[in-house]
Amino acid sequence: MEAGKKIMIVVMDGLGDRAVKELGYKTPLQVAKKPNLDWFAQNGTSGSMDVIGPGIRPGSDTSHLALLGYDPYEVYTGRGPFEAAGVGLIGRKGDIAFRCNFATVDQKMNVMDRRAGRIKEPDTTELVKALEGLKVAGIEAVVKDATEHRAVLLLRGEGLDPHVTDADPHAITKVQLSRPLVPEAQRTADAVNEFVKRSFEILDAHPVNIRRREQGLLPGNILLPRGGGPFPDIEPFEKRYGMKGSCVAGVSLIKGIGRVVGLEIVDVPKGSGGTSTDMVAKARIALKELERKDFVLMNIKASDVVSHDGDARRKVEIIERLDGMAKVLREGLPEGAVIAFCADHCTPVSRFDHSGDPVPLTIYSETSIKDGVQSYDEVSCAKGALGRIRGKDLMPILYDRADRSEKFGA
Amino acid sequence: MEAGKKIMIVVMDGLGDRAVKELGYKTPLQVAKKPNLDWFAQNGTSGSMDVIGPGIRPGSDTSHLALLGYDPYEVYTGRGPFEAAGVGLIGRKGDIAFRCNFATVDQKMNVMDRRAGRIKEPDTTELVKALEGLKVAGIEAVVKDATEHRAVLLLRGEGLDPHVTDADPHAITKVQLSRPLVPEAQRTADAVNEFVKRSFEILDAHPVNIRRREQGLLPGNILLPRGGGPFPDIEPFEKRYGMKGSCVAGVSLIKGIGRVVGLEIVDVPKGSGGTSTDMVAKARIALKELERKDFVLMNIKASDVVSHDGDARRKVEIIERLDGMAKVLREGLPEGAVIAFCADHCTPVSRFDHSGDPVPLTIYSETSIKDGVQSYDEVSCAKGALGRIRGKDLMPILYDRADRSEKFGA
Repeated sequence: MEAGKKIMIVVMDGLGDRAVKELGYKTPLQVAKKPNLDWFAQNGTSGSMDVIGPGIRPGSDTSHLALLGYDPYEVYTGRGPFEAAGVGLIGRKGDIAFRCNFATVDQKMNVMDRRAGRIKEPDTTELVKALEGLKVAGIEAVVKDATEHRAVLLLRGEGLDPHVTDADPHAITKVQLSRPLVPEAQRTADAVNEFVKRSFEILDAHPVNIRRREQGLLPGNILLPRGGGPFPDIEPFEKRYGMKGSCVAGVSLIKGIGRVVGLEIVDVPKGSGGTSTDMVAKARIALKELERKDFVLMNIKASDVVSHDGDARRKVEIIERLDGMAKVLREGLPEGAVIAFCADHCTPVSRFDHSGDPVPLTIYSETSIKDGVQSYDEVSCAKGALGRIRGKDLMPILYDRADRSEKFGA
Repeated sequence: MEAGKKIMIVVMDGLGDRAVKELGYKTPLQVAKKPNLDWFAQNGTSGSMDVIGPGIRPGSDTSHLALLGYDPYEVYTGRGPFEAAGVGLIGRKGDIAFRCNFATVDQKMNVMDRRAGRIKEPDTTELVKALEGLKVAGIEAVVKDATEHRAVLLLRGEGLDPHVTDADPHAITKVQLSRPLVPEAQRTADAVNEFVKRSFEILDAHPVNIRRREQGLLPGNILLPRGGGPFPDIEPFEKRYGMKGSCVAGVSLIKGIGRVVGLEIVDVPKGSGGTSTDMVAKARIALKELERKDFVLMNIKASDVVSHDGDARRKVEIIERLDGMAKVLREGLPEGAVIAFCADHCTPVSRFDHSGDPVPLTIYSETSIKDGVQSYDEVSCAKGALGRIRGKDLMPILYDRADRSEKFGA
């Protein structure tokens, strides 16, 4: 019995779609020229996959948890902890993480701009430094800047409870006091409120903001936390599967998922996570990772970005670029490796957002049964031999295809 | 982001079938001419659906609950409450409802006819009036006449328990005493037994029955309760989905399901619920409802009626009439609306009753992916891109297709 084979999951973010009027009621996948993705479909086994469940509309975080074999209904504790992990801030059990915006407020705490004039690095990086070592209501507060006007706040201490309301008013109005939703959360609400107050005191007079005002820019003079969640108690990927794995992704949230489950986060080229991403370079990085690891999760965000813009023609172009990436993977895949091509959810261009439609799935390895599917698209894959499966079943299937699964019984 | 789209479910009752010898081992759907149903299949996405689960043989009540997105294993509390709701008798939590038959008994409580010579309105309506304000064992007893020889009994009071045996002997023998199956149900059994006794005392001498005897008809001189169940604690449809909905059905039991979940019950033409139903009129009513509501559930019973008769040729004819209804829906469907064609269960003509075979399903909206299915029938739909789904997943799928679903995660 030889050793288990290697596994790669290629997540083409938001790839699946619905019938698009301007494409003659076909989907972008049905219209695009993609001989390499089709080659995998022709030589692999295909199906359609409800990443969470039929009709359930996934976020990118819950869907990637499912694709890694974790039940999101069990382990998903809100966006905060995964955003925090995305920027490298991993909490311990009991810690609570919040997403924050740098915002602009006047002296009476009226929100003038929820994004502080779309402030970004290096200003945000500079500003969070001023908050280092902060303690609020006796609780340690760790802040880190994230993409653009975003940051994360991690509260670390005893007796915290995530059931508090947001300080972010989500509108142009007064900053809200965080309120406890259960009595045990009083201390957490107090900490959030003190954090908001202190952030204003420290940031309002900060040299970066003085300069911004002089330049006619809005100051990032307060941090507004929202969406608090506790760090999940999640079984590490390596413990669960006995495999070391890497995560090749440009998007912070996906890196966060990878980091929380214990995948190694690999550096990717600048521009990764957007439409300008060099997919071929990313495929080469993923293949290199697979040389030294058992498992690689790869996410390419571009297909989701153009879908949120509702741009069907761009989506077809992006798919044709994804096919170039598939060509590199086809040529460089280690012998015996098992590779899955899928999406984390559909993002129909007609909806401008995620949907709960099932995504097309192809699993390829040298020993895959060929089911006659000729094209990697929503309709063709749905008629494949895998039938309709759930996202959380993907890892067990790949794991078994890689000859790694334990026998249940004798 | 535009508002959610409208949703219609068309339940063609008992439509699915098995291979029928006299139809050359085809199903009635495979033999019937139905260009409009086929149009929906050609332009929509199809699948096969286990309304409850594989091989599980649904009743019309459990199946409609599933089709509305409720798990019948959680919310179905027996036929009594849904029959009661069907005739407009909605109980409160703690109330127990029974189905009843008007029966004919002699003075020694021997059942002569379980249906009292198929007594019906206006006699039954007149008879139940005599039972108004009845109290049995200190419990309020509300009676209402239902279709033909049927009625419903609702017990309302403290400390009731549904675990009692039927007073209806289900055979031509002596009326049974209701017995408690658990000690807590003693009071309920007492109430049932006193109700049966009092119904005989009041009805036997009733002028309607005196006249019936003179006309040589059997008297409906007793009511025999069976199938008691508590009113379910069910989340209202509008709360669950944020949509107002209507139920367009002729059959009392289906109206009951609609009423229990809070759908508006719409008046349908006389004859609806049988084979003489004017399906085209019903389709027009359903379309009119969809103008002012977000959701319509439509049930057409005729296909089930002829199936229970085992009449394959009639079933083919009924399907061709259903196609006329589909034509009206095709021409009148509001822009963007999502429509599903399905059955609540199969009723194979060779079985004369419901079966657990999966039912054919087609979901159509403008953005449906076309899966190449050419005909709306059991075999063709099973090869569609929806694969094989469960009844309780239908509503989440339609809800998402109508762009109404919430995102799980970010």
